[in-house]
Amino acid sequence: LDISQVEDNHRQDSADLLIFIMLLTLTILTIWLFKHRRFRFLHETGLAMIYGVLVGVVLLYGVHVPRDISNATLSCHVNASPPTLLINVSGRFYEYTLKGEISASAISDVQDNEMLRKVTFDPEVFFNILLPPIIFHAGYSLKRRHFFRNMGSILAYAFLGTVISCFIIGLLMYGCVKLMKQVGQLDGDFFFTDCLLFGAIVSATDPVTVLAIFNELQVDVDLYALLFGESVLNDAVAVVLSSSIVSYQPEGDNHHTFEVMAVLKSFGVFLGVFSGSFALGVATGVMTFTKLRDFQLLETALFFLMSWSTFLLAEACGFTGVVAVLFCGITQAHYTFNNLSPESQDRTKQLFELLNFLAENFIFSYMGLALFTFQNHVFNPMFIVGAFLAVFLGRAANIYPLSFLLNLGRRNKISSNFQHMMMFAGLRGAMTFALSIRDTATYARQMMFTTTLLIVFFTVWVCGGGTTQMLSSVVICNRADVVFISVALISNSVGVDSDADNSGSERRSTKQESAWLFRIWYNFDHNYLKPILTHSGPPLTVTMPTCCGPLARCLTSPQAYENECQLKDDDSDLILAEGDISLSYGDITVSTDASGVHTSSGPAGTTTAAISADDLDRELSCGDHELVMRGTRLVLPMDDSEPPLVDPRHRMRM
Amino acid sequence: LDISQVEDNHRQDSADLLIFIMLLTLTILTIWLFKHRRFRFLHETGLAMIYGVLVGVVLLYGVHVPRDISNATLSCHVNASPPTLLINVSGRFYEYTLKGEISASAISDVQDNEMLRKVTFDPEVFFNILLPPIIFHAGYSLKRRHFFRNMGSILAYAFLGTVISCFIIGLLMYGCVKLMKQVGQLDGDFFFTDCLLFGAIVSATDPVTVLAIFNELQVDVDLYALLFGESVLNDAVAVVLSSSIVSYQPEGDNHHTFEVMAVLKSFGVFLGVFSGSFALGVATGVMTFTKLRDFQLLETALFFLMSWSTFLLAEACGFTGVVAVLFCGITQAHYTFNNLSPESQDRTKQLFELLNFLAENFIFSYMGLALFTFQNHVFNPMFIVGAFLAVFLGRAANIYPLSFLLNLGRRNKISSNFQHMMMFAGLRGAMTFALSIRDTATYARQMMFTTTLLIVFFTVWVCGGGTTQMLSSVVICNRADVVFISVALISNSVGVDSDADNSGSERRSTKQESAWLFRIWYNFDHNYLKPILTHSGPPLTVTMPTCCGPLARCLTSPQAYENECQLKDDDSDLILAEGDISLSYGDITVSTDASGVHTSSGPAGTTTAAISADDLDRELSCGDHELVMRGTRLVLPMDDSEPPLVDPRHRMRM
Repeated sequence: LDISQVEDNHRQDSADLLIFIMLLTLTILTIWLFKHRRFRFLHETGLAMIYGVLVGVVLLYGVHVPRDISNATLSCHVNASPPTLLINVSGRFYEYTLKGEISASAISDVQDNEMLRKVTFDPEVFFNILLPPIIFHAGYSLKRRHFFRNMGSILAYAFLGTVISCFIIGLLMYGCVKLMKQVGQLDGDFFFTDCLLFGAIVSATDPVTVLAIFNELQVDVDLYALLFGESVLNDAVAVVLSSSIVSYQPEGDNHHTFEVMAVLKSFGVFLGVFSGSFALGVATGVMTFTKLRDFQLLETALFFLMSWSTFLLAEACGFTGVVAVLFCGITQAHYTFNNLSPESQDRTKQLFELLNFLAENFIFSYMGLALFTFQNHVFNPMFIVGAFLAVFLGRAANIYPLSFLLNLGRRNKISSNFQHMMMFAGLRGAMTFALSIRDTATYARQMMFTTTLLIVFFTVWVCGGGTTQMLSSVVICNRADVVFISVALISNSVGVDSDADNSGSERRSTKQESAWLFRIWYNFDHNYLKPILTHSGPPLTVTMPTCCGPLARCLTSPQAYENECQLKDDDSDLILAEGDISLSYGDITVSTDASGVHTSSGPAGTTTAAISADDLDRELSCGDHELVMRGTRLVLPMDDSEPPLVDPRHRMRM
Repeated sequence: LDISQVEDNHRQDSADLLIFIMLLTLTILTIWLFKHRRFRFLHETGLAMIYGVLVGVVLLYGVHVPRDISNATLSCHVNASPPTLLINVSGRFYEYTLKGEISASAISDVQDNEMLRKVTFDPEVFFNILLPPIIFHAGYSLKRRHFFRNMGSILAYAFLGTVISCFIIGLLMYGCVKLMKQVGQLDGDFFFTDCLLFGAIVSATDPVTVLAIFNELQVDVDLYALLFGESVLNDAVAVVLSSSIVSYQPEGDNHHTFEVMAVLKSFGVFLGVFSGSFALGVATGVMTFTKLRDFQLLETALFFLMSWSTFLLAEACGFTGVVAVLFCGITQAHYTFNNLSPESQDRTKQLFELLNFLAENFIFSYMGLALFTFQNHVFNPMFIVGAFLAVFLGRAANIYPLSFLLNLGRRNKISSNFQHMMMFAGLRGAMTFALSIRDTATYARQMMFTTTLLIVFFTVWVCGGGTTQMLSSVVICNRADVVFISVALISNSVGVDSDADNSGSERRSTKQESAWLFRIWYNFDHNYLKPILTHSGPPLTVTMPTCCGPLARCLTSPQAYENECQLKDDDSDLILAEGDISLSYGDITVSTDASGVHTSSGPAGTTTAAISADDLDRELSCGDHELVMRGTRLVLPMDDSEPPLVDPRHRMRM
């Protein structure tokens, strides 16, 4: 009786999970078909959502598994809802765990379809299992020269812009809600904090979608850096913003009005949580100073575990795991990555790429499914129209004024085309969904969830699908550039690459003025942090003042001495394309000439080759490719029949 | 009130999970130290267990988190224990899900330490999440020539041997239990079916441990094949055996005695479930006929999802997921692997290797932890001594008589040294643990769990740690062999290797007689299945009778024609080292001369080099290396300074 029931349950669970796996498989097959045929009008995430919607419709109308009759309501005389419950059924004790509160109406209404109830996941799954790999991957693949170049603008968009957008949307929605109350369209409570929370939730633009779409198109590198950097960081901002709004919200207290003190308190919580998560992420990222180069499997496993434990540690400390994992990813890409063996660099990259791909497609499928299978939808046309308008205006109030202000400081202006593109490409995705599904207990939250879902659908299908057209209409892709690359092939893995574009000289002088903060940090990083934390860079004994000699000697790893005469690829990653920086140590000299082209002379010969602008663009516009191309890199096209003289330990990709 | 409670819970959960991650990290770091210093007296799995035990002691005596006061027992007047419960707490409805039954004694006794309760996982986690990757990896890395050579013996040990062992142990334990009842040492019921179940549980020897230990030692290839093959397959047998015993057990009925009809019925269930799982696994394995070679990420993701969906599908159909996943792995290694792009071959291999490593170490850590944190241990000295004796005798009754019978048919006898080694290396590990923790509700099951845990500890620490000594004492490692290898380097990835050992000629003639069944299958597989299911092998148009021409043409993939003049590495994997098989098609001829050494002549030149026996041994004795070495394979030692003329698309490992 009991065992067979448990077994039936288990079988049912397997079947439910199988639905999702099949959905993913179907999506992958269709993506392949699309890539094969070069369809571009619909993105793969949009596709996953369509399949999700279809399966949702089938589940809602096609399959009907009646709810177990024994799930009758118990009217127990308890005055609390403990997380664990022991029930005494005629002498035998059964343990029950709390799943959540159910609104009284839901029980009588739709709740009788067992299947729909089963395919509804615990919202925490999204936050604790599916988001971390996505966010980590974003951080891990963020290590782009162009990201660091546009650091200031990205930070402005991500922090200031998200906060502006959050408040604009919050205020507009508060007006909308007031109006609805007047018209009599609102059936429940909707406080100002709810409006602000809604603003925080829908302010997070999605790095996943941006990455996926722009990765395939050959888009301007600066636009890509701005969009991707902003969307990665504003996710973190939105998470912390929403959780500080929620934590401010006094429970049981109906005093949900605007107060300066409360806002300041929220701001304090925001800063505390954000900086805590940031510090934790960076600390664990730096700590993962692996020396296990000889055992790739151990190395990869350790890398994976450290990333995960960052997340858990942050959550256990009451910080935000997602933010910690983001900065852990960035730090690991910057420091730890250099300590890994070439094989582990490949492995970790591929592993996180796969996890990211699966998690991303799962979330988007689930979103499609949730449109029909989620049981507490509250479709309110007026709220939805208001929200679309507010989101549009909020994004506009983020991009245009900030761009205007930033352009005052930048000599390399963000053109109006760029601004329109950023406006258009502010897709909402996985993070927005995860934030909004986290709590759907009250009427207000349910309405917010439904509206958020529609916003995500609209932006992914319409904006995501139309990006290609939009890009070609505003002509941002700079395919006509002619780029020369000098590839230095020094015996033991040195690849130096650079890019020069039309506005090269103008841009260079801009940097000279605006990036002084960055320059200071770069020098500190290059001379002290990198030598301490990785085996690359100049030994500390060279860079530190002579008085610190003994300290320097004890902090420098033996390998750093071996590498002394090697210029590591990643160092040149950060070199600004300026004429005034010239690094020289050991017997290698890297100098940058006036046209922004690096020339490199080392003990081994150098090769110079011209490659097409398209090749370079593709390379630069995709963040995670860079991680691949870190061993000996050959950018020059070559015949298979003419194998080069290269150390076979290093792998080449072309 | 409510939200903060949930948050506290979440924080606590994160901290608990963090303990396990830290345990794993610690294990990895120590493993690295051990490998670095070349310690061999303790295996890494044993190490993981030791750390688990230490943390368990700390949790039990050092940390005391009192149980939440609100978890008081509710005495509800219900007459069932439904999987879902709706509780009406003063007008608000809360949903609770059933976690399991708790024995009345446990509630008052130890149950007050919340921490211990939290680190106890749902047993289903082991079966549904941790075991599948381990088992799949075992199947995926099983593709060894030596496995197929010893197929008959392996099947005999795995099927017949496990059943013998199960019944011997069951009968001995039944005697032991009877005795205990007489002496008054038994406090609860212990039926004959419980004894049989115990036999089935502890009969499963562990491929994980065998693989891990023998991988590093340079052991005789045939011994390795016998041990590894047996332990992989007997896991599957034990799972099905135990579940058919459980399904036979009539609930509520105390008539647990031996009946011929019941045994026959169990046998029927066994056959049904096993063949169902087998068919399902092979079917999905074959179905994964990927053609997505151009998109490695999609390919890897699809491969991963198909393996997982095999497991879920089997569970949903009421078969055994673990068995299905095993055969899915074997089939995919044999067919699908050839269709993958070289990059995906690496990726999938590395992915499953990592998953396997993490899951394995997690299980062993958890085992150590469970020794102290599991709340319902029943230590019964008499039962434990009886069980150790029974396990020893059961293993002996499996190995020695079967070896004797097999030796009647084999000309290449299994020497007594081999037999002692197989006896000694029958470690119990993850599978035994997962099977025994699956149900610990009754007194008998709790006693079985405790005893099983001790058996696992003993075998892993004593037998696992002593294997090196044992191996050197019975001198099975054949380091003195001199082996010549001819490596054929044909323009597009052909590597043929073979091994010849002391008893070469004797062994070859053995095969000629005993492996006729295998030969028929091999020919069928080579001529029909491989061409249909992969792009390798001769086109069907060549191998099929002329009358089936149109059918053959439509079943042959275009790539197979391109590959026509290539001899794929894996085909030669299965070629028996006999003088009478000579394959010839296209312009390549591979013939085997009398001394068992392949000579190969192709359009490109051939190279012959002598390599040390140690190198070859190491290569042959590790199953999963083979998966790596499938591109162009170079077995000859070479200087880095002299790069060979090889197509750079293919990767080399040395």
